[in-house]
Amino acid sequence: MTRRNAYQQSGVDIGAAEQGINEAKLAVLDTYTPEVSSEFGAFAGLYRLNLDSEEVTLAASTDGVGTKTVLAVQANQLEGLGFDLINHGVNDLLGQGALPLFALDYLASNKLNPQDITTILKSIANACRKVGIPLLGGETAEMPDVYNPGEIDLVGTVVGVVQPGINFDRERVEEGDLLLGLPSNGLHTNGYTLARKALTNNLQDPLGTQTVLDALLIPHQNYVNEVKPLLEQPSCIKGIAHITGGGIPDNLARILPPTMGAHINRDAWCPPEIFQLIQDQSEATTIDMFGTFNMGIGMIFVVSPEDRVEVTTRSSGSLIELGQVIAEPNITFSPQL
Amino acid sequence: MTRRNAYQQSGVDIGAAEQGINEAKLAVLDTYTPEVSSEFGAFAGLYRLNLDSEEVTLAASTDGVGTKTVLAVQANQLEGLGFDLINHGVNDLLGQGALPLFALDYLASNKLNPQDITTILKSIANACRKVGIPLLGGETAEMPDVYNPGEIDLVGTVVGVVQPGINFDRERVEEGDLLLGLPSNGLHTNGYTLARKALTNNLQDPLGTQTVLDALLIPHQNYVNEVKPLLEQPSCIKGIAHITGGGIPDNLARILPPTMGAHINRDAWCPPEIFQLIQDQSEATTIDMFGTFNMGIGMIFVVSPEDRVEVTTRSSGSLIELGQVIAEPNITFSPQL
Repeated sequence: MTRRNAYQQSGVDIGAAEQGINEAKLAVLDTYTPEVSSEFGAFAGLYRLNLDSEEVTLAASTDGVGTKTVLAVQANQLEGLGFDLINHGVNDLLGQGALPLFALDYLASNKLNPQDITTILKSIANACRKVGIPLLGGETAEMPDVYNPGEIDLVGTVVGVVQPGINFDRERVEEGDLLLGLPSNGLHTNGYTLARKALTNNLQDPLGTQTVLDALLIPHQNYVNEVKPLLEQPSCIKGIAHITGGGIPDNLARILPPTMGAHINRDAWCPPEIFQLIQDQSEATTIDMFGTFNMGIGMIFVVSPEDRVEVTTRSSGSLIELGQVIAEPNITFSPQL
Repeated sequence: MTRRNAYQQSGVDIGAAEQGINEAKLAVLDTYTPEVSSEFGAFAGLYRLNLDSEEVTLAASTDGVGTKTVLAVQANQLEGLGFDLINHGVNDLLGQGALPLFALDYLASNKLNPQDITTILKSIANACRKVGIPLLGGETAEMPDVYNPGEIDLVGTVVGVVQPGINFDRERVEEGDLLLGLPSNGLHTNGYTLARKALTNNLQDPLGTQTVLDALLIPHQNYVNEVKPLLEQPSCIKGIAHITGGGIPDNLARILPPTMGAHINRDAWCPPEIFQLIQDQSEATTIDMFGTFNMGIGMIFVVSPEDRVEVTTRSSGSLIELGQVIAEPNITFSPQL
């Protein structure tokens, strides 16, 4: 999500706004009841539902598609937006060890074009069907005073349930734990303001077997099939990071103890071509790129070395050994960024 | 919510868009799994969570504040918006016999003003605290390409649990059942496009002990305290309508059997002055007014005549006897609209 990190509820600092962020954070923390078991700024919020005879932990995440909608509207290719919306939310839940139960959507625009709305709602429904969850509710709003002509915003909430036995307490993470990654298929839903600016004149250029535009509009993929078998053997996994805004450094830091960091071997994978093109056509440094985009890695698991075989056997995806946890609180890369 | 009914997922017909609406509706219905126990277009979606030893029904609703934000931004009075957001969602859950567990928010704008964001987030947190629920998650996004300068959109999701014993099957509703209403304190979050247009030159005029602007910005109230005691004796209540966009006629029709209607005695209550002023300053007919605004009634309960005493004793609010259910599928008023 573009520039979302500028002032987001996960508490990222942007200097002058710091005090405001802290104030807002304190006000939010002040709403927490004993049932809340997630940290502020987690991939999804966790809520312990105490029933008569058992306890279940619900997980919920709200997010938008960001300015990927601008590109999709411009190209009149709206069919992928529902997958962007639902899959992003589903992956946020996976990051907390939860599987999705249902989703809700909110679609707003300057003026409602019934055909476009239908296309988007069908896309959301298709994405839900693919994951096997109902689209339980939603809202469609037309607000000409609020939205720029032609533009839309698309927001979704996914609610799920944490799988039994999950324990993603950061304190279980140790020096030497392995970082295993799943490849991404492109930008997913992050970095579109930078990408659109860089590639505005290149959208119709070929990129491999497709165009740059096509590469940019590939929908955010979900990792349910890869993660679900791992959640069934929950003791193997010490943490899961969904690589979204802030890239590998920010999102990995969210699941490590504050005193620890990670070392990542950049030669372990090859980022999709689109990332190099964005960098070539912009003034972004490699540090900027890794701090904005997922750079080809969609999810990262923290795993004890002795569980490596169990985890790689269970996951149906091609897990990439990215690096390991280190005892210093930095995310470092080799080759250096 | 302004003009929201134009094309909303509850399936309201706007002529040419009908086919698109139906297509979208079918696509959404196609996502429904056996766990979904709500009808399409209900106040909140219902999901049966089957656990090992018991069953619990979750309720969830997503909605926005609509163009009430435009007025709040213009007046630089953002402190009420969080209450608008949370209370609207909470009331939607009450309409399904559910009490809220937690909420999530989404706040997006053209450009983030840290002070305003802080004010709004604190307002959301305050509203959550007042209801006793945590703000479990949320997102803040800055999208200059999507939003008009200075404008914001504010969206919330409230998740709750249906109270034991609730049975709002419309088929239980009978001719002669009573309609008991709870008063609203103003427009809540509906009809602001019409209201803003009508009153643009009158905002600073006095209206009783306040200004017109103040009257328009009174936050949406929630009815937890009034409804909770009723949900503890669930057999007394056959249905609850939250009066939002579409007013009494549309929202009452959502909880009655398709073959039935209602007759409402307009002399039973006195709408807040702001509604008469809006009508005086616009070309809206009384039919338009009742089809757009809540007209002073925030919630309506369908109750069997023999339960009237039990219900009025239990509810801490001042229940107004509005009328009764009739055997014809129309919502009629006397005096006529």
